[in-house]
Amino acid sequence: MDVSPATPAAAGLSEEDAAALATPFVRALVRQIRSHDTTGVWESKSDTELLEPYVITAEQRRAMPVIADPNAKQLWRLDQYWAAAGLAVEQASGIIATPMIKITHEGFGRAILIAGRLVVASRIMRDVHRFGFTSLSKLAADGGKLVAGALQMIEKFPEPARE
Amino acid sequence: MDVSPATPAAAGLSEEDAAALATPFVRALVRQIRSHDTTGVWESKSDTELLEPYVITAEQRRAMPVIADPNAKQLWRLDQYWAAAGLAVEQASGIIATPMIKITHEGFGRAILIAGRLVVASRIMRDVHRFGFTSLSKLAADGGKLVAGALQMIEKFPEPARE
Repeated sequence: MDVSPATPAAAGLSEEDAAALATPFVRALVRQIRSHDTTGVWESKSDTELLEPYVITAEQRRAMPVIADPNAKQLWRLDQYWAAAGLAVEQASGIIATPMIKITHEGFGRAILIAGRLVVASRIMRDVHRFGFTSLSKLAADGGKLVAGALQMIEKFPEPARE
Repeated sequence: MDVSPATPAAAGLSEEDAAALATPFVRALVRQIRSHDTTGVWESKSDTELLEPYVITAEQRRAMPVIADPNAKQLWRLDQYWAAAGLAVEQASGIIATPMIKITHEGFGRAILIAGRLVVASRIMRDVHRFGFTSLSKLAADGGKLVAGALQMIEKFPEPARE
């Protein structure tokens, strides 16, 4: 049974959000999040609801402490984000890409994506407790950029990526 | 002033231990450890004394719990070990190699060494609370193997390593 609404408008989505939800990265992120739903409690939640913690409006950001230790939920969100990037890379290239994330208690660190012997993506992270995007389309754009850069790197150095 | 003894025997070292201390990896490890000695308290300590925590005899190992969370000192030792491997790789190749280590609270995880875009070494770690070697020469052999493998990888894929 297909329960997805026929049109974005029927789901109360703007066209922009609907386009964001259809991108390979965001689809991978939703799949990745749902894969943790072993008890089925998220089945009734829409994709937008699941992604809500990734969307931080300007007001919400202003209300957040500038400096804070990231909590387990925030670290988990970051993990899923990079895992989704890995999934999207694999889907597009057939090459498995695995994230490795090292964050200090203060929320500073580095995240990379490894394919074979190749570091296909690498980012320095700060303020992990504030990790998020102002809209779903910003989330889709950032994830898409991460994946596109990784795919370019695989294209540039295919041999170590397949090692 | 050079305070190092003229012969291994004068320092109470076996020839095997003296040979281990002279390897590029172990020299890098000693340098790496001493670089943290900001207060000078280790100046009176010999290299062998500084490396002592890395040497775990069979009896000592038997006395250790099989399962335990690694403590800060044990994690620090692992950090220095991989940092030393990076230093030795740089010394031999001129290419900077940076470790990235991700260990769970249970002492399980992964350590890699990255040169440019290349993962030049990668190891899955278990039982980090028992990280150590039965002798200085085993330590030197293991570190040497880690460095040699990394240098081979740089030789195999020089372009991403210089990226």
